[in-house]
Amino acid sequence: MSRPLEILICNDDGISALGLRSLVEAVRGLGRLTVVAPDSPQSGMGHAISVGKPLRLDPSDLHPGTRCWSCTGTPVDCVKLATGVLLDQKPDLLVSGINHGLNASISVFYSGTMSAAVEGAIEGIPSIGFSLDDFSANADFSAAIPYVRSIVIAALENGIPHQTALNVNIPRLPADQIKGIKITRQAGGRFQEEFEKRVDPYGRDYYWLTGHFALDDAGEDTDIWALRNGYLSVCPVEIDATAHHHTSFLNRWDFRQV
Amino acid sequence: MSRPLEILICNDDGISALGLRSLVEAVRGLGRLTVVAPDSPQSGMGHAISVGKPLRLDPSDLHPGTRCWSCTGTPVDCVKLATGVLLDQKPDLLVSGINHGLNASISVFYSGTMSAAVEGAIEGIPSIGFSLDDFSANADFSAAIPYVRSIVIAALENGIPHQTALNVNIPRLPADQIKGIKITRQAGGRFQEEFEKRVDPYGRDYYWLTGHFALDDAGEDTDIWALRNGYLSVCPVEIDATAHHHTSFLNRWDFRQV
Repeated sequence: MSRPLEILICNDDGISALGLRSLVEAVRGLGRLTVVAPDSPQSGMGHAISVGKPLRLDPSDLHPGTRCWSCTGTPVDCVKLATGVLLDQKPDLLVSGINHGLNASISVFYSGTMSAAVEGAIEGIPSIGFSLDDFSANADFSAAIPYVRSIVIAALENGIPHQTALNVNIPRLPADQIKGIKITRQAGGRFQEEFEKRVDPYGRDYYWLTGHFALDDAGEDTDIWALRNGYLSVCPVEIDATAHHHTSFLNRWDFRQV
Repeated sequence: MSRPLEILICNDDGISALGLRSLVEAVRGLGRLTVVAPDSPQSGMGHAISVGKPLRLDPSDLHPGTRCWSCTGTPVDCVKLATGVLLDQKPDLLVSGINHGLNASISVFYSGTMSAAVEGAIEGIPSIGFSLDDFSANADFSAAIPYVRSIVIAALENGIPHQTALNVNIPRLPADQIKGIKITRQAGGRFQEEFEKRVDPYGRDYYWLTGHFALDDAGEDTDIWALRNGYLSVCPVEIDATAHHHTSFLNRWDFRQV
């Protein structure tokens, strides 16, 4: 006896994003596909959930060959509603993306795409987030799709370690210029914010968050190095956020008499 | 020559929360205090940032003895605006909280309080998030305040390791029943969601996210164990999310010819 694999598909760019359509294409035929995606773009939502706000699910026919719902919540809400309300069994795999834009290095914290995958891992589901180095709405995912499929098949065959999600980032290159796949670590770096201050028509100040990524890591084993050198990056992401190596240092602290 | 320490204070329950007032009280006299907090409750916002949405800062007199602004954004936006717009030097310390409600175990991912502290650590600021095991708006922070001050002083004296934030959780106990401070690790566990389905006055379904925490970790070195046994928990949180111990396993995967 066998049953088809149950594959849950999410994203953060919203249900109508081309990247989501490309991800559905990449996994088609591998199992029963369920799409639950935000009804509007949710980039930068990180691991936000909707506390104290009602959530709605509406059936959608945007992705033929799937069971598909749009959700009024965040990417993590989508995962929770899928597993808590819509699916009668735990998915065998969760895939999120394909994000329009990289989620390498420190972006893993801000990314709704990766937060959906991390939420899957928290819930014990093998989970992978995919991101392409192209922010544009009409980004070309054609070179990415076969790599996404290849990585999904390898993950199903080998099994993703418990309490771990995979963060896959794909360079913006034609297929014949992608050199291969590197297993990487999260590059050290951060966004250097530069806020643009403006004045609204009523004379009040407001700010736009801008900024650029500053790499602070010369390693040749990082996700950023791989991408800048023509490779796909596959980085395992840990659910246990404890900095275990600092425990003994902290145990030597003298907390004064309170 | 010396200058007063620059201490940045944030939270996720909003600028008028009693927990924020208690945190200001706890660090008063230790340096120049700057408060930047959301203008409304932001629980569960995780590491969300406002992409494509203008942000506003308004001066506030809610916390006497501090320079204080309310912000229309998320907790992480508050940190970014504080360091990017308001402060002319990098803070010597960031404290976030005191949250109304625990942020132990897996809650570190959903918590705006801890995400503000993690954002501080990303930006190279020694950062601590504080949370009390009491969700009520009028929670009693009196036993927590001296512990918060003690931990802040120890952190300033010893230095928090680079790329690490501290996640401090405080049990809901009278001062004389708190047994002390434990350095801990993040307990394994997750929220088991149970959505409550309702029908709105127009006949459409909607869902409330509820659920309870399910501990999946028998360890006596975890944050949850400490709290359940009368201790404050201090857990170091890692900015490098890489699951380094799985790299070699992933390197053995055979990615089929794409």
